[in-house]
Amino acid sequence: MRILITAGGTTEKIDDVRAITNHSSGRLGKTIAEAFLSENATIDYITTKQAVKPDDQRVALHLVESTSELADKLNELMTVNCYTAVIHSMAVSDFTPESSVTMEDLQQTIATHPADLAASLKAKDQERTEKKISSDTDHLVIVLKKNPKVIQQIKELQPETILVGFKLLVDVPMIHLLDVAKKSLEKNQADFILANDLAEISGETHHGYLINQQHKVKEAHTKSDIAQLIKEAVLERTNA
Amino acid sequence: MRILITAGGTTEKIDDVRAITNHSSGRLGKTIAEAFLSENATIDYITTKQAVKPDDQRVALHLVESTSELADKLNELMTVNCYTAVIHSMAVSDFTPESSVTMEDLQQTIATHPADLAASLKAKDQERTEKKISSDTDHLVIVLKKNPKVIQQIKELQPETILVGFKLLVDVPMIHLLDVAKKSLEKNQADFILANDLAEISGETHHGYLINQQHKVKEAHTKSDIAQLIKEAVLERTNA
Repeated sequence: MRILITAGGTTEKIDDVRAITNHSSGRLGKTIAEAFLSENATIDYITTKQAVKPDDQRVALHLVESTSELADKLNELMTVNCYTAVIHSMAVSDFTPESSVTMEDLQQTIATHPADLAASLKAKDQERTEKKISSDTDHLVIVLKKNPKVIQQIKELQPETILVGFKLLVDVPMIHLLDVAKKSLEKNQADFILANDLAEISGETHHGYLINQQHKVKEAHTKSDIAQLIKEAVLERTNA
Repeated sequence: MRILITAGGTTEKIDDVRAITNHSSGRLGKTIAEAFLSENATIDYITTKQAVKPDDQRVALHLVESTSELADKLNELMTVNCYTAVIHSMAVSDFTPESSVTMEDLQQTIATHPADLAASLKAKDQERTEKKISSDTDHLVIVLKKNPKVIQQIKELQPETILVGFKLLVDVPMIHLLDVAKKSLEKNQADFILANDLAEISGETHHGYLINQQHKVKEAHTKSDIAQLIKEAVLERTNA
């Protein structure tokens, strides 16, 4: 059994010193890796320098920073290896900085090139000669463009793999969370989605729902419960 | 001798999962702390969870995240204790996120409330009900407002302390770096500025210039050289 796990949170550079980070300790991913190790799985584990990592020689660590590096690494690994399951728990940035300008530059661009504002701001940004943005302005404006959805390339690369996706929302009603998770299942051709709410995560306490394609829901209350649910779901599917 | 050191990089929240981080390993701050420990200094050390930290019981660690928390902690410590020197090496975010809107929202706000765009976008953001920004847009726009300059409160709180500030630029001519450092000396009433260029920092190699109020410049090539320069400068001033 060969498993691919992604964990931790991506970092998208604004300039050489600033970045936008998606916070994730990586502890859930580590717990999931440990659950699969107890089944003697071989694990490829994509994570970041900052994240907590599993420490076991059966886990091959692959470090990435940005969403784009994650996409490349997934593509590379999934071209070479065949995975029983892909557990995609990494907190991936949906957006990456495209341009950073001062509010004055924004106002000027609105006045002169209002048509395609994103493209005009990008051009404005590229006129700038310093690599670090000056702080001589009251307001800075950062425009971010949408990243391609990394999760969508997984089933394209390996239609037979069991895909477990994650959906994290913040302080929403449970019914809304499950609804968003169902949509994510379909859009990403996932076999399971682990839906969770940041307001219900604190240390080892980690409330989550594992939803399958038939919309059956299983509930867990700790990180190790979630890891067990995911492991059992994957084992059930491989034995079916 | 009681020394206050700040080190590491601040994190400014965009929402509950995303943040803007200023990258800094904290290793230079740690090296500076070690240099002062060898003089039996008592050290208050303000840093972040992510940064490398000195490990010595004579160092009191104070953890902060944002620029605003740093300002509060500096104020608290400098009201209670009298410091021989304050070594302010922390990479502080000049800006903090004020509003996040979609490009569509920006276009609409430009059309309806073009006058004070920053304020109008803030109002637009506050209309949003979800705590996590939706990713259903091609471009996201984050407006950041300038933070108060933390370094400027140091001499206001303790005019007698020896203030060592830091100036980091990226890949600029040396003459420009020194010029910016001189301006920083005056603006912040600093006694010394350590000027450095990210393009000349790699592992232990760390090229830096220590500039005093008479604009005399001393050069260093490693983190421990820089720490020594700063320690000697402080000792010289206290013995003068």
